Order: sequence, then C-alpha cells, then structure tokens
Amino acid sequence: MAMSRNVSEAVRQRNLGTLLRLVHVGGPASRSTLARRMGLNRSTIMALTGELTSAGLISEDRPHVSGRAGRPSIVVRPSCDRVYVLAFDVAVDRLVAARVGLGGIVLDRRVAVRRRAGADLDDVVSVLASFGRSLHAAAPADAVCAGVGASYCGMVRPDDGMVHFAPDMGWVDQAFGTSLSDALGLGLPVVVGNEAHLGARAEHLRGAGVGFKNLVYLHGDVGVGGGIIVDGRLLDGEAGYGCELGHIVLNPVGGRACNCGSHGCLEAEVGERALLDLAGRPSSLYGRSAVRSVVDAAASGEDAACRALREVGDWLGIGVANLINLFNPGVVIFGGMLRDVYPSCAEQVQARIANNVLAVSREVRLCVSALGDDACLVGASELAFAGLIANPLPR
Amino acid sequence: MAMSRNVSEAVRQRNLGTLLRLVHVGGPASRSTLARRMGLNRSTIMALTGELTSAGLISEDRPHVSGRAGRPSIVVRPSCDRVYVLAFDVAVDRLVAARVGLGGIVLDRRVAVRRRAGADLDDVVSVLASFGRSLHAAAPADAVCAGVGASYCGMVRPDDGMVHFAPDMGWVDQAFGTSLSDALGLGLPVVVGNEAHLGARAEHLRGAGVGFKNLVYLHGDVGVGGGIIVDGRLLDGEAGYGCELGHIVLNPVGGRACNCGSHGCLEAEVGERALLDLAGRPSSLYGRSAVRSVVDAAASGEDAACRALREVGDWLGIGVANLINLFNPGVVIFGGMLRDVYPSCAEQVQARIANNVLAVSREVRLCVSALGDDACLVGASELAFAGLIANPLPR
Repeated sequence: MAMSRNVSEAVRQRNLGTLLRLVHVGGPASRSTLARRMGLNRSTIMALTGELTSAGLISEDRPHVSGRAGRPSIVVRPSCDRVYVLAFDVAVDRLVAARVGLGGIVLDRRVAVRRRAGADLDDVVSVLASFGRSLHAAAPADAVCAGVGASYCGMVRPDDGMVHFAPDMGWVDQAFGTSLSDALGLGLPVVVGNEAHLGARAEHLRGAGVGFKNLVYLHGDVGVGGGIIVDGRLLDGEAGYGCELGHIVLNPVGGRACNCGSHGCLEAEVGERALLDLAGRPSSLYGRSAVRSVVDAAASGEDAACRALREVGDWLGIGVANLINLFNPGVVIFGGMLRDVYPSCAEQVQARIANNVLAVSREVRLCVSALGDDACLVGASELAFAGLIANPLPR
Repeated sequence: MAMSRNVSEAVRQRNLGTLLRLVHVGGPASRSTLARRMGLNRSTIMALTGELTSAGLISEDRPHVSGRAGRPSIVVRPSCDRVYVLAFDVAVDRLVAARVGLGGIVLDRRVAVRRRAGADLDDVVSVLASFGRSLHAAAPADAVCAGVGASYCGMVRPDDGMVHFAPDMGWVDQAFGTSLSDALGLGLPVVVGNEAHLGARAEHLRGAGVGFKNLVYLHGDVGVGGGIIVDGRLLDGEAGYGCELGHIVLNPVGGRACNCGSHGCLEAEVGERALLDLAGRPSSLYGRSAVRSVVDAAASGEDAACRALREVGDWLGIGVANLINLFNPGVVIFGGMLRDVYPSCAEQVQARIANNVLAVSREVRLCVSALGDDACLVGASELAFAGLIANPLPR
C-alpha cells in the first residue's frame, strides 16, 4: 500500500513537471493538446493544471475567437511575468545579465562591453551582481525568482560552478558560482555551465536544433568550444569535461600552435587568430568586429581575405566531417563568431563532408545558430529553470 | 482507477525486467542484495522472484554453508541451462556461432576459419545456419531459445539487420538478418549489429568497461571500427550510423589512402595494412597472424617492426587523444587486432595523450579488451537477450 502511494505521488510529480516543461518549451497549448501529448485523459490534465495554476506557475483561459464549431479548449500559458530567473553570460568581450520569464522570454537585460585584459573575478562578479540586483528590483512586486544560472567561457566543474580553466580569461580554479551567489545576496545558488554546452542546449530546445535528437554545436569565441547533444542529452563524459571539440587535432604535422600547448587543434586552425593571421591582419586586431571585417573584405573580393576564409573553411570542414562520422548528428550548428565565418566558407565545409563523411551519415543539416548572440544566455536561463521544471510543487 | 492499474502493471513489468537483468549481468545474488539494489522491500522481491521462477527464468536456493549467524538469504540464479540464445559473429577471417545461456555463459560453440575472398551472403548464411541448427539440436530438450543475435563486420541498418556497406566483405545492401532467420528455420528474427558497437556493449556489461558510464572501444579488424558508450548507452546518432571513428581524418596532408576513398583516416594510419606496409612486409601477407608476427619481431628487436609500431602508435595516440577530448571517457578499450598492437605502442599513445588531451580529461584508463575474441559474440548474445530482459513475462 505504501508503495502504491509512493508510486502515485512520483507519477504525479513527473506529470506536473512534464506539463510545465511542455508549455515552458513549446509555448501556450490547449488542454486537449496537452492531454494528447502526455497520453492522459482530460480530467487528469485538469487536475494537474489546477495545481499549477494555484501555484501561479501557469494561467488558463478560453480563447476569445474560434472559427470552429464546438467549445474551444482552454489554453494553458506559462506565467512569464510572474515566474522568472536571472541569467548571466560571461564572454571574453562582454558581460550580459537578463531576467528571463517562464516560457523562455527575455524580459529585461543589461550589457557591459569589455576590453579583454584584466578581467579578474572580483570585477566580473561585481558588474554582474549589480546588473542582477537591478534586474531583480525592476521585476513586478508579485514576481518570483525561481533560480539563477550563468554561462561562462571556460571549463566549469559541473558540481559547484568552479571555473576550472579559462585560458582566454586567465582564470584558474576560481569559485565563480559561489562568489556571484554571495554578491547577489538573493539567497539563491548560481548554477554555472560552459558557454558552448549551454549554447547547444538552448539551440536544441529553442533554436536550430529543435526536432533533432543528435546535434553538434560549435561555438567560436577567442577559442572554439562545443556542445554535443547525444540522444537528446548533453554529452558530458565521465567527469563533465566532454565536448572539447576545439582541441581535436586535425593537423599534427606542421599545424598552428594552440593555446592549449598542442599543435594543429581545430581551434588553432579555425579560430579568430588563424583567420586574422591568414588574412594578413596585424596582431593588434582582435575580436568579433575584426572577424567581421575579414568576412566583409572577402565579400568585396579582397584576395587575402578570400584565401584566409577558404583555408579556414577547409580545416573547419575536416573537423566537422570528423564530428559527423562520430556522432551522425541531424544538424551541425555554428555559433558565436562562427556564425559570421561559416556562411563565407560553406562551400569548403561541404566539399570536405562530401569527401570524408561516409555516405550513410551525409544527411545532415548545416546552419548558423538561430538564437544568435543569445544562445548561451538562453542556455543559462534553462539551467536556472531546471530545478523548478524537475519539481514544480515540492512537498 | 484504470490509470492506477496500468501504472502498477507497468511498474511490475519494469521491476521484473530490472531483477532479471541484475542476475543476468551481475550473476547470482541474494534476495536481500536484490532488495537493496532495487530499493524494494523483501516481500515485493519475493513476489517478483516467484513469478520469474515459475516461468523458468531463474532458480532460487538456500546456500548450503554459512559462516555467519542467522538464516542465510535465498540466492537467485539465472537459469543458464534452460534459457539460451544463439549468437553469431561474422568477421572477415572467421565465422563463429554459439549457444549462450542466460547469465551470459557461452555453453557451446562452432567456429569456421575462412579465406578472405569470395565470402558471399549465401555461403556465410549457409555455414551459420548449419552451425545454429546443430547448436539448437544439442541443447537440452527442456531448454528454450529466447532469441537470435548476430555481429557483423560492416555497417548495419539498425531497423532490419540489412548490411548497408561492408567494404572488407564486398557486401552492399544485403538482407543478412532475414536470410539467416529464414535459413535457421526457428521462427525467430535475427537481430544484427555492427561488430564494434556490440563489442563496446559487451565490454561495458561484462568486460573492461564495467563500472564506467562512458567508454570508447576501438575494434581493429581489416579496418578499424568503434563503439562508444555515452552515459551508459551506445551512441548511435540520428540514423544509427554514429561511432565511425575509423574514418576520422587525422592526417589530411599527405596521409595514406583509405578504403573509404578519403586520405589520412585513423583506419588508414593504424589499420592492418598500414602496420604491415610500414614494417616492410609484402602485400601478399595479411590477417591477424601477420600482425602478430610484426609485434613479435618488434619484441625481438627488429628495427623495421619497431619503427612501424612507433609510427602506428603515434597516429593511434592522436586518434585516441581526440576521442578523449570529445568523450571524456573513463576507459578506452582496444579490441580485435588492436589487442595485439596497443601493448607494443602504449608509450606513443600515452605520450600523445599527455600532449594533446586537456588536463581535466587525462584521468582515463587504457586497456585491451577483457573479453578478447569473444567481445563481439557476447555483444550479439546481449542483443538476442534484450527482448526477454525488457519484458520477461509478456501478458
């Protein structure tokens, strides 16, 4: 008997979470749609939506207009304005903070553009905490903050948000998550994830990866990171440090030196520095605008820029072909600065795929990130929402 | 009410499967151990073991000797002698068939060594079917065949066991699974899997990968295949063709030609032909014994053989380092002919890992297959048992 009650309670909790996730990710849905998607009858759905409505997590209303005969089904909406999270994105060249409502809507944001040098933990935390408090203060009085998440441009220890290694920031073993949590003073932990991992999750949920169970997301910043979704879940590996596709070696004989100490890594061959060097740009130039200027120059026919993009495209193609052979993904998504680069060297990438990928795996879509510069931020918000979605009404 | 009954029935079915899997994979276990591992009370365990005993899938007995005070807990054993599967392994140089008992014990086997040329579908199916019928006839009269599985050295379409592409056998789009099923005449379908995928599953369940959730298995035959376990499950990708690690390109500039039409693939740089060519062996030599003779010659100090193993080891190291950066596995396992090769070039492999793998992912075990030449066969038997384990007592 005790077992039956526990089972029913576990089923109820799971159903509440599934329903909330469906409207959080998929947007407003009619009760009948939810019943069909969850395989439950309408009275069970009504009981679940009743509980979630009482808790303020969703609202239900009847659509005003209906062109069809019969009573229109009640529509269930996530309470975007009443339930939100704070999401942060620490990139090499900017800090972003946002208030994101249930349903994944960015409601408010703050941005600080940064110079690259001298970005120490205290500075970063201080700017973000001030943004976070300001966003919190600007929220409606009856709104509830359900969690805090952050995206970070480096290796993050999954357990505690410790930044393990971030060569582009000069951080080693910094307690970023706990420091930001303390500075925010909201009494909430800050869940931290690697930017490319979060970008992959965001694209999978809400971007170019919707509908695929297997995807590869390449994120170009100063370095090149990756997030790989295998059978619907982020590949993390035995200790949480998988997906390091920037450091697969493609050019061991005579490849360019990499920040990691090795040679011929994907990051070394297709990263920002490789493109700028190959295009003959001075070493004082860096950043997204410098990358864009090479892409623009190539579009105007500048020889050096065209050659640079062809060469970068060839290495990018070799790397992507390897990833396709390993993961047989439905889609490969280019994010960060690779959003600017990929369209200008798509021909090289596709030629390598035609040459190096086994025929059975060639049915793969290649595209740029649909969420653009918000991919990692949206991923951070999903990290923040995860606790609520997993257990919407804890007993 | 209907929902509650369905829920209880689903829970019961799941529990029956979980219990059967625990003793099938882990071997005999006491009722109290099973209760603890499944988080259920002893009376629930007794009800489950009662049903499985009545169906002949397990037996229960009290251990004869107990050094401890109190009544010893009843021990639950899989019915190895009464419930079996037929498992087949089609490799380039041999055909193997076995009767494998519940619990994963190879009870009986037949082997045919083959020349490489002229291995067409009818020949292979005819030999295997004759082995299978003979194994079936030799089984005890009261034993039940629960399924049939086969491992194949090529790309297999997951849905129907169609061999899609097997360059080393010269097969393209051959209906291997259905042909073998028809020829066996047991009225059972034959589930077919790729050899390296099955080797990975077998090592994960019963070999060098036990206790790890993430592993990479490299299988050297004429080519090099792979099976990769991500978070406990075989990576298959969007269409079932993932894990093709033999065709990741490591040496695009001046690499050796590969059977796939590309250049510098892992398979081209570390496969049987690369090793034999580098060691100066004539092109008429091939196969496992030729590989072993190079390894033996290197052990005796032959210069050409030592150089060949060092070079193969360096490329193997680059490939393995790339896989570790991507998958952060707990263990990398070398199977097939790489069981002979890896120990003789472990130094080169480890040097590349030290150089190319990010520090956080370097905690990884490297070892040869624990199941040896039976890895793929055992994997095929697990494929055959999967239906029974998923649903031991269908209603």
